[in-house]
Amino acid sequence: MNNFLQRLLVALIGIPIILGAAIAGGIWFFILVQIIAVGVLYEFYRLAERKETHPHYIIGLAGLTGILIFFAYQSLSDVFGYEYRISDEIEFIATVGLFFILLSVVYELYRHKGSSFLNIGTTMFGVSYVGVGLGTFIGLRELFDSGAIIILILFSIWVCDTAAYLGGKATGKNKLYAAISPNKTVEGALFGLVFAVITSVVCKYLFVDTLALHDAVVIGLIVGIVGQVGDLAESMLKRDAGVKDSSAFFPGHGGFLDRFDSIIFVSPAVYLYVMTGMNF
Amino acid sequence: MNNFLQRLLVALIGIPIILGAAIAGGIWFFILVQIIAVGVLYEFYRLAERKETHPHYIIGLAGLTGILIFFAYQSLSDVFGYEYRISDEIEFIATVGLFFILLSVVYELYRHKGSSFLNIGTTMFGVSYVGVGLGTFIGLRELFDSGAIIILILFSIWVCDTAAYLGGKATGKNKLYAAISPNKTVEGALFGLVFAVITSVVCKYLFVDTLALHDAVVIGLIVGIVGQVGDLAESMLKRDAGVKDSSAFFPGHGGFLDRFDSIIFVSPAVYLYVMTGMNF
Repeated sequence: MNNFLQRLLVALIGIPIILGAAIAGGIWFFILVQIIAVGVLYEFYRLAERKETHPHYIIGLAGLTGILIFFAYQSLSDVFGYEYRISDEIEFIATVGLFFILLSVVYELYRHKGSSFLNIGTTMFGVSYVGVGLGTFIGLRELFDSGAIIILILFSIWVCDTAAYLGGKATGKNKLYAAISPNKTVEGALFGLVFAVITSVVCKYLFVDTLALHDAVVIGLIVGIVGQVGDLAESMLKRDAGVKDSSAFFPGHGGFLDRFDSIIFVSPAVYLYVMTGMNF
Repeated sequence: MNNFLQRLLVALIGIPIILGAAIAGGIWFFILVQIIAVGVLYEFYRLAERKETHPHYIIGLAGLTGILIFFAYQSLSDVFGYEYRISDEIEFIATVGLFFILLSVVYELYRHKGSSFLNIGTTMFGVSYVGVGLGTFIGLRELFDSGAIIILILFSIWVCDTAAYLGGKATGKNKLYAAISPNKTVEGALFGLVFAVITSVVCKYLFVDTLALHDAVVIGLIVGIVGQVGDLAESMLKRDAGVKDSSAFFPGHGGFLDRFDSIIFVSPAVYLYVMTGMNF
C-alpha cells in the first residue's frame, strides 16, 4: 500500500473518532484525550532515553492523569459557577496525581541509574508539557456548550499544515529555520497562517454562530502562529534526541508526538485567551 | 564568631520572622514563602548547572509564582465554599504562570546552549519540586483559621532534626544510608521520629485545641517519616551535583535548600491528609 493510501486510511478512521468524541464531550472526550496523552508521553520518554536519562514512566503517567483531571474539573466549575462541583473524590485523585511529582524524587533514592537530577527533570518535563498542552484541550471542550470549538481548532490546524506544505512546495524560497526543520519555508508558513485564519472564520459561520468574528480571527491567528511554533519546537526536541519521527504508530503520519504537537501548543494559548475574557 | 553563636543568631532573627508571618497569614505569609521559594529555586538551578544543564531562571520563577498563587487561591476557595472568590485577575496570573512552562520550550528554539531536552527538564523539575512543596505550605496556612498548624509543623520539624542529631550522636551505631548521607544513623532517625510525634501532640495541647489527638499523631508521623526522607532526597540531589551545602546563605545553617528541604516534603503530605477528610 503506498504512502498516500495509508495516510488516507488512517485519516478516514481517525478523524471520525476524534470528531465524535469532541461532540459527545464529557467522559468520552476525556477518555480519548487520555489515550492520546499516554501515547505522546510514552514517545516523549523514549526520546528522553536517547539523551541518556531514565524517566519514570509510571510516575509520569500518574502525574499527567492528575493534571488532565484537574483541567476537566476546573472548566466544569467555571461553567457552572462553582455550584456544580464534581465529587470530592475526583478532586482527591487530581491532588494525588500532582503529588506523584514528589514521589519520583523519593523513588530515585532507591534507583541508582544515571543522574537523579536528569531522570526527574525529564519526567517532570513530560508531565508538564503533555499535561498542560492536552489538559487545556479537555478544558476548552468543557468551557463551551458543544464540541464546535474543538472541531474549529482541529480543522484550522489541519488546513494550516496542508496549506503550509503545499504553499511552501509551490512558492517556497526562503528557509524558515534550516538548522531545525530544513524543509519548512517562510512562504509556506505564511500560507499556513492565512489559511488557518480563513478556516477558523469559515467554521464560525458554518457551525459556531455564538463565536464573535474577531474571536474567530484571533483563534485562527493563534493556530497559524503558535501552532507552527509548536511544530518547530517538537522538531527541535527530536533533533536534540537524534530522531526524525517520534514513532511509526500511525502509518504515514509518524507517531503521537508528530501528530499532536500543534494541539499541545495551540490549546494552552486558546485556553488563556478564552479565560481572559472572550465572550462566549 | 564561632559556629554555634552564628547558628543561634540566625535562629534568633529568622524564627520570629517565620512565626510572625505564619500568625499574620494572608499576604504576609505568602510574601515570606515567595521569598523563601525564590532562594530555594535559585540554589536548585545552581545545582542543575553543575550537571551541565542550563535551566531558565526567569521562566522558572514565573512558573513557580503561578503555582504558589494557585495554592493560595485554591485553599481560600475551599474555606469560603467558593462564594469568596479572589478576583479573576489573580486566577489569570496563576494561569499565566502555568503557561510559562510552554514558553520555556519556545525559548530553547533561540538559545543553542547545551541540550534543549535537559535544560527544560531541570527548569520544570525546579518549578514542580519547589512549587508543590511550598505552594501546599501556603495552602495549609489558609485552610486553617490561624497559623497554629504551621507553627506546629515547624516546631515538629525543628525538634525532629535536633533529636535525630543528638540521639544519633549519643547512641547511633547503624548507618541509615551511608552512600548518600554518611553521618545519619537508624537510631538517630528513630529518635527524630519519636520526638516529632511528641512535639506535635504537645503543640496540639498547648495551642491547637481544635486538632483531634489522632490527627496530631498522624502529622507528627508525617514529619518524622516524610520529613527525614526529604532530607535524604536533598542529600541525594546535592551528591549528584557534587556539593555539600546548597549555599552558605544562612551562616552555620547552609543554604535555602538545606534549611527548607523537610518542609518541601512534609507540606504536600500533610496537605493531602487534610484534604482527604481530616476534621478541623
